[in-house]
Amino acid sequence: MKARVFVTLKSGVLDPQGKAIGHALQGLGFDGVGEVRQGKVIDLELAETDAAKARAAVRQMCEQLLANTVIEKYEIELKS
Amino acid sequence: MKARVFVTLKSGVLDPQGKAIGHALQGLGFDGVGEVRQGKVIDLELAETDAAKARAAVRQMCEQLLANTVIEKYEIELKS
Repeated sequence: MKARVFVTLKSGVLDPQGKAIGHALQGLGFDGVGEVRQGKVIDLELAETDAAKARAAVRQMCEQLLANTVIEKYEIELKS
Repeated sequence: MKARVFVTLKSGVLDPQGKAIGHALQGLGFDGVGEVRQGKVIDLELAETDAAKARAAVRQMCEQLLANTVIEKYEIELKS
């Protein structure tokens, strides 16, 4: 089973990297670009085949290592 | 319209950051974790309302700025 984890800054947390991308896009002539936020995506290959157990394990990984839950939120997507 | 862009290393390109995450997860006692790859996710707010035009614009952004197409590939997801 494969899992994809998105780790993004919570709304309200300043994202200078996203801002820099937004400015660079404007500089390249891309108009109509509003807020830009950057985050991380982590693709995991799991031996677990049960979706519920896999999700629980990945949630634990996020809490313990992948995300800094003070300022970041995470989303988990599973693909069998 | 909102767009989410995933920028990940092409398969075959060494991903030391992903490897480090994999080792850290093993160290924390998470067994059954295979390959780990890390990438970037970029969330954009676009003024464009036409999906085809928005996708074309975001593709251009990826080619020009967001992805290094020599070693990275990108996926575009649109949400109205």
